[in-house]
Amino acid sequence: MSEEKKGTEVSRRQILTGAGVIAAGTAASAIVGTSFVKSAEASAKYPWPYKKLNINQVGEIAYKNYFTDFCAMTVLKGLFTPLRKSVGGPYKDYPLAAVKSFHGGVAGWGTVCGTLLGAGTAIGLIAGPEHTEAMTNDMMFYYGNTTMPMYTPKKAIKVDIKHHTKADTPVCHVSVGKWMKAADVIFLSPDRAERCARVAADIAMQTARLLNDLHDGKYKPSHKPLANVLGNGITSQNNCDACHGNNIPDVPGGKK
Amino acid sequence: MSEEKKGTEVSRRQILTGAGVIAAGTAASAIVGTSFVKSAEASAKYPWPYKKLNINQVGEIAYKNYFTDFCAMTVLKGLFTPLRKSVGGPYKDYPLAAVKSFHGGVAGWGTVCGTLLGAGTAIGLIAGPEHTEAMTNDMMFYYGNTTMPMYTPKKAIKVDIKHHTKADTPVCHVSVGKWMKAADVIFLSPDRAERCARVAADIAMQTARLLNDLHDGKYKPSHKPLANVLGNGITSQNNCDACHGNNIPDVPGGKK
Repeated sequence: MSEEKKGTEVSRRQILTGAGVIAAGTAASAIVGTSFVKSAEASAKYPWPYKKLNINQVGEIAYKNYFTDFCAMTVLKGLFTPLRKSVGGPYKDYPLAAVKSFHGGVAGWGTVCGTLLGAGTAIGLIAGPEHTEAMTNDMMFYYGNTTMPMYTPKKAIKVDIKHHTKADTPVCHVSVGKWMKAADVIFLSPDRAERCARVAADIAMQTARLLNDLHDGKYKPSHKPLANVLGNGITSQNNCDACHGNNIPDVPGGKK
Repeated sequence: MSEEKKGTEVSRRQILTGAGVIAAGTAASAIVGTSFVKSAEASAKYPWPYKKLNINQVGEIAYKNYFTDFCAMTVLKGLFTPLRKSVGGPYKDYPLAAVKSFHGGVAGWGTVCGTLLGAGTAIGLIAGPEHTEAMTNDMMFYYGNTTMPMYTPKKAIKVDIKHHTKADTPVCHVSVGKWMKAADVIFLSPDRAERCARVAADIAMQTARLLNDLHDGKYKPSHKPLANVLGNGITSQNNCDACHGNNIPDVPGGKK
């Protein structure tokens, strides 16, 4: 990258070599620190009040509702259904179906897994301006770094699941594609639906764990917010060569 | 792809050749039709009441607040600030900062552009179960197919913008990367921030246009929901070879 790039507040080379750490840190603070708090809406109802969740109950609700609600909505339902009873208030009025179209990486476009948008919506409303960015970031790492599905229902709604994969990304298309390849099934199969239902339970449960920790004053970010942006010089995953290079499999059937 | 794949309700080959159109259509209906309505939350407040928006006002608010709120929150602010005055009610209580961490493709991970998540949150709350999926899908197409930024402020907050690019994707990393390459600037530059602020205005304005059309009974989907899923046999974009193949540029500087 040219050193002569115009408009350079902190050059990518400076970030990569560490020379711009202080300036980059300032930029990060502008996003997650002072600026975030400053621009947060002043509202007596924000962040929303919270009572600790039963992790297993959250998982069960998220799992069983996946088949009608899909990934984003069912995660939010897993988290909010108990809160509607224990807290009431704003949870009662929030229409869970509002996030339904975030399914399948937003309306089936395969971008970020919808479970993370259901989780992110809950975190955004509950965790408040000081913790939302870090907790959402932790969930993005968790999704990619965790072999899923882990959740095992007492009785499978569709079929049993024998394959478990690590996505190495929060991207729906890649996460689902890797699992479909391992299980040798197509997208419109009961197997894939069952897998996504269980992943939804996993993500809802982990979100509940972090929110419970925050409620107990025990939440500490597992990862540094914006590490990918500062490390790679652009909004990005943390594994560039997953897409750049020759690691992307051919399209099945050669379709372009 | 093997024809012997287990759990096959509709095989990918059937979908691609058209033999599974009826079955696939049924699957699509389960997502966007009856099932959606059935699973929607029964609430007097859903969908939220709406009054037509002034498109230019929406764009101006989204643009000028980007620099503190970032992409997702500023789009939602552009849409909701006028509705707080004209409608009040639920808009007044919704904490806009709840979606702030969706910036930069969700906490800077470069997945779906945060503007589309701000837009999707508003659409989800306003368009109701019959139209949310289609309108969100239309916005995903619009984002990738539109040369942006189009919005031109009376006076630039950071710098003037001379480059305009078509992303061919709703993905933040690719959209921003293509523009950065065209403009020859780095991510942490005033130029890139100015570009994203104007894109936020563009997306907020288009969302307002579609919501205004819906309010007038004139909204018709421009694209068929789930066309990508049914066409490609997986949640996906509509241009497979943008990622599969040799079209991905090398990482600048060779970083892996």
